Amino acid sequence: MSFFLKRLSANAALADETLEKLMPSDAEGFDSVLRESMRYSVLSGGKRLRAHLVMEFCALCGGKTEACLPYAAGIEMMHAFSLIHDDLPCMDNDTLRRGMPTNHVKYGESTALLAGDALSLYALETLANNTYCNDTQNLQAVRLLSAYAGCFGMCGGQQIDLQSEHKQIAKDELETLVNKKTGALFAAACELGCIAAGNDAKKRETARLFGLTTGLAFQIADDLLDLHASAEKLGKTPGKDAESGKSTFVSLLGETEAEAYASSLCKQAKELLDVFGDSDAKESLCAYCDFIITRDH
Amino acid sequence: MSFFLKRLSANAALADETLEKLMPSDAEGFDSVLRESMRYSVLSGGKRLRAHLVMEFCALCGGKTEACLPYAAGIEMMHAFSLIHDDLPCMDNDTLRRGMPTNHVKYGESTALLAGDALSLYALETLANNTYCNDTQNLQAVRLLSAYAGCFGMCGGQQIDLQSEHKQIAKDELETLVNKKTGALFAAACELGCIAAGNDAKKRETARLFGLTTGLAFQIADDLLDLHASAEKLGKTPGKDAESGKSTFVSLLGETEAEAYASSLCKQAKELLDVFGDSDAKESLCAYCDFIITRDH
Repeated sequence: MSFFLKRLSANAALADETLEKLMPSDAEGFDSVLRESMRYSVLSGGKRLRAHLVMEFCALCGGKTEACLPYAAGIEMMHAFSLIHDDLPCMDNDTLRRGMPTNHVKYGESTALLAGDALSLYALETLANNTYCNDTQNLQAVRLLSAYAGCFGMCGGQQIDLQSEHKQIAKDELETLVNKKTGALFAAACELGCIAAGNDAKKRETARLFGLTTGLAFQIADDLLDLHASAEKLGKTPGKDAESGKSTFVSLLGETEAEAYASSLCKQAKELLDVFGDSDAKESLCAYCDFIITRDH
Repeated sequence: MSFFLKRLSANAALADETLEKLMPSDAEGFDSVLRESMRYSVLSGGKRLRAHLVMEFCALCGGKTEACLPYAAGIEMMHAFSLIHDDLPCMDNDTLRRGMPTNHVKYGESTALLAGDALSLYALETLANNTYCNDTQNLQAVRLLSAYAGCFGMCGGQQIDLQSEHKQIAKDELETLVNKKTGALFAAACELGCIAAGNDAKKRETARLFGLTTGLAFQIADDLLDLHASAEKLGKTPGKDAESGKSTFVSLLGETEAEAYASSLCKQAKELLDVFGDSDAKESLCAYCDFIITRDH
């Protein structure tokens, strides 16, 4: 296994362990099924890319891993919330996620709705309760993630996505959509790492740009995968975007140009890291840029 | 108009004004409809009881009104989020709220889902950005509201509500349900007022109990109103609980005993305030106890 894949998998294991510890698991009470459904979606694996970015940027800025683990767990909870609600019948109406039945298929629509709601709240609660960081850091973390996930960030991106169905949109509009829907959480992940390491404003701005740039590259790679990969490999239903008439980078640019665009974004993202001195974290983040555009699922 | 109603209406006006200022209103971008739908639900009036409680407890603890206004606005946003999701087809499937079409009837189910999601995040963001309070107070506020609204609080209560449909539940189970579903946000409101005034732990505990006790009384009064009032007066569809076979205090205790129980809770809540010295806020909160069980909508 490469240096990068070893590091990614070690970080994913740390994230899983932290989530396992932090997610409520009591089986008492009529509402225990709600907690069970939250755990179902949060602890269903996944690459933990967002948690990985929190940890790498924390290391890049000279912070200690343990200081950022609750932030890493919190952003994975926020991501899981967005997936649960995105899969609901009134949204993408998807039945398969990471090769498993989606939350509403398993627990019913009402419980899935509440599980998403409660996860989003629990994500911010987890940030606010990070005992390794001080009150000001935790408050910065809450401000950041609530803003980036909210109506000007991820939720705003999902709304644009809804408005764009069965409509040809321009490339810059698609970029705005992706920056909000996908990029915002990646940017939040990178910045959360900086906050845990001491909250340097200049480093945070670089981290934000790295998150957005790689987020865009990630989405283009996703569009390309959606074209070729099987449901088995993807762990979700492929070809949904084409079916719902949504514009993608592939439909707008064609396959070859989309690939070239992803590569140029990958290069830009690496250049952003030039302001940081050499470190394992920097090397790993450069390899991350290559990974997101070459992965097969 | 009575001393109490004047005060309630002045506080509601302050809450409305603060919400009007804080809720995003930009009409730019494909996602502007999301912000419009958030504003639709948040700025649709209502008695602003939760904001009122924030302000009264802040005054009771010697705090300044302006210090608690963002908290008062934030809890009304959280309340509006819960109403939007509660009204969705997969939940109560209601079409009428405060005499107006519910959010999903007006904007469609997907936008209503996202509006609720974004409001919940924006509520916590608003608490975190209260410039009149320090970082520690704001962090306490975020911890409190995220916990009380989440899987052990309001969302947990909604889950119990789902599990209890078409089922006879015992009085203590119904109380747990109501403490979580309704009481938690009232308790959060009272405690947020204390936090804005300086965060005295003992006062917060009294505030919490006052919120839970009056929350229970409020729900019993709601059950009684649901029995007799018209849709016009209630601004929502009456008789929904009986229809879905849910246990209520009226179905469990009968009308007379339910009324007596509400009165005794009202008395208990007033007694909790004995630890505070005399003030307009104390007098107003005593009148609030009477108000919630005698209101006609």
